[in-house]
Amino acid sequence: MAQESADIADVSVADQFVKTLVLLFRAEDSYGAWEGKPDEALLAPFVLDREARAAIPIIGDPDPDTLWRLELFYKAVGLMVEKQTGLMASPMMKMSHEGFGRMILTTGRLVVVSKSLRDVHRFGFPTIGKLAADGAKLVEDAVALIRDYPDVANL
Amino acid sequence: MAQESADIADVSVADQFVKTLVLLFRAEDSYGAWEGKPDEALLAPFVLDREARAAIPIIGDPDPDTLWRLELFYKAVGLMVEKQTGLMASPMMKMSHEGFGRMILTTGRLVVVSKSLRDVHRFGFPTIGKLAADGAKLVEDAVALIRDYPDVANL
Repeated sequence: MAQESADIADVSVADQFVKTLVLLFRAEDSYGAWEGKPDEALLAPFVLDREARAAIPIIGDPDPDTLWRLELFYKAVGLMVEKQTGLMASPMMKMSHEGFGRMILTTGRLVVVSKSLRDVHRFGFPTIGKLAADGAKLVEDAVALIRDYPDVANL
Repeated sequence: MAQESADIADVSVADQFVKTLVLLFRAEDSYGAWEGKPDEALLAPFVLDREARAAIPIIGDPDPDTLWRLELFYKAVGLMVEKQTGLMASPMMKMSHEGFGRMILTTGRLVVVSKSLRDVHRFGFPTIGKLAADGAKLVEDAVALIRDYPDVANL
């Protein structure tokens, strides 16, 4: 029973994560270009199967649209963390020119998300379900860390 | 007596900070261009008095040499923190194009230094003594934070 409700909570975080991502996406649609489009169409560029990934060369700088989607993904994580804890999580990215880098989110003096980035050129997920699950996992780990170290998160 | 030894400790951190900064400076001197130069000559570009500051326009991107000195300064802070605690402090900088930004150093999941940057075009100190004192203060605050939250610093 406890296991079941834990699963339901996870699903709800994953759902909310995708909704937040779509919201951020639409917030940047100043000219209404995506107004008639369904959410699935907006999220489509986040989905890369194995063949699509392999087809993207990892030389040169990552595509600006890819970087923008990467930032949007972590912004959504930050917003969800804020929604659940009331504390802001601000992203900071360090990017080399070869698609390697680091993304962190900080809340007060606590690093709530710390991810090494590799092959950013190929940033994407096999399915929207996987995107949602990965986003939800980052949110839940960040929230757990804030609950473990509230003093540091409030510094 | 206790006060006196505390003062001596501060002076020693400040001295070591300047030495570390010079060391980092010389480490990047691949062609030996600064070999004959005394430390004071190397550190001279870090010193900006009120008139020199005012003479630097704060439009456009900050000078790359200024950014390089800024990064070197915080690298020196990180190295000193590592020397005193045995834990690495990695810098991350976020820079806008107008000389505003943020510099943080992280140790494990702890943000040991967090500085808003303004007017980066004019990064500098009125004297080397002030540079040393500011550097030492950042180091001491970072080390104190690590001692307060060793669990987070070791995460």
